[in-house]
Amino acid sequence: MSGYKVYGDSVSGNCLKVKWTADLLGLGYEWIETSVLSGETRTPEFRALNPAGQVPVLITVKGKALAQSNAIILYLAEKHGGGLIPDKDFARAKVYEWLFWEQYSHEPYIAVRRFLKAYLKKPDDEIDPKLTERGLAALLRMEIQLTDEEFVAGPDFTLADIALVAYTRVAHEGGFDLSAFPAVKAWVRRVEKRLDLEAA
Amino acid sequence: MSGYKVYGDSVSGNCLKVKWTADLLGLGYEWIETSVLSGETRTPEFRALNPAGQVPVLITVKGKALAQSNAIILYLAEKHGGGLIPDKDFARAKVYEWLFWEQYSHEPYIAVRRFLKAYLKKPDDEIDPKLTERGLAALLRMEIQLTDEEFVAGPDFTLADIALVAYTRVAHEGGFDLSAFPAVKAWVRRVEKRLDLEAA
Repeated sequence: MSGYKVYGDSVSGNCLKVKWTADLLGLGYEWIETSVLSGETRTPEFRALNPAGQVPVLITVKGKALAQSNAIILYLAEKHGGGLIPDKDFARAKVYEWLFWEQYSHEPYIAVRRFLKAYLKKPDDEIDPKLTERGLAALLRMEIQLTDEEFVAGPDFTLADIALVAYTRVAHEGGFDLSAFPAVKAWVRRVEKRLDLEAA
Repeated sequence: MSGYKVYGDSVSGNCLKVKWTADLLGLGYEWIETSVLSGETRTPEFRALNPAGQVPVLITVKGKALAQSNAIILYLAEKHGGGLIPDKDFARAKVYEWLFWEQYSHEPYIAVRRFLKAYLKKPDDEIDPKLTERGLAALLRMEIQLTDEEFVAGPDFTLADIALVAYTRVAHEGGFDLSAFPAVKAWVRRVEKRLDLEAA
């Protein structure tokens, strides 16, 4: 036991990033299932941990709370090694670039459309068409990158792959057909193999 | 001259983060003014630098391109020191947390509403009310944090302050009245002083 606690919702890709990174690094942790749909992230107790009312939240060994999925996986990978962040400055910065891109240009469209369609059961015609348009643009950008590179941030498997696979592998649940993006599809399988996951 | 080039739009807070960080670190750079409104970020030449079609883009001394404002300032601060990132693991992770929060929960509302109102000149009743609601929620979260702390990520001035001040100091241009957030307002002045900026 490393003494970590993770507040997470198992259907949230953002939370699974933390689980997969901790598992890859061989860290022990207690997983505290916290359902977004049931409102468990909006209670006063939860907001005392994270005023933003979002999972995941990591509680460190010293009892301090850290939010934002990509900040948490950076923290774990910096602290426990495992080669998930490149040593060289520019290569490491490229990982940062993709982590920020994921949260700004991928998750708000692909994860949000999946949440609306698969969890809130909204019919397609009630979902803002911008989500589809921008989600497809994000997948196209990944397709171009992964046609040239084995992994998202270059030749090596990094945190950028963990962050981006989280919602890309379940993009079909949001109505995005990955068969139009063969390089992305092949990369999803490569990353799932690294993470020892069944195909979603 | 350190040999950096920065493609940036001077009215974009995301681009100014890079300018302010480079200036604080005393780095020389060539600023290549690139107007978003005039479509200069969507030309084939620009997309060859950044397929996402967004400024800022940093070109390193070796000619390599790095995108995403917060990735760029992390790269510069890691490479050139200056004390803008804490040494201790958890304190540094808190800076990451706020950088990701800025791009996910602050910029998409406060910067976007400012862009629509001040640059695209949209009347208030044509702007999605969610932008106001979520922008105010972001300012409230900052107000709570800055009531307890001198700077966003704790007692020290860090990259998190540079990233968050960029659009907070011009929030009024997007219709957000900072006088309801006195701790935020006082912090804006403190950070402007550090960055040697006139009040916006």
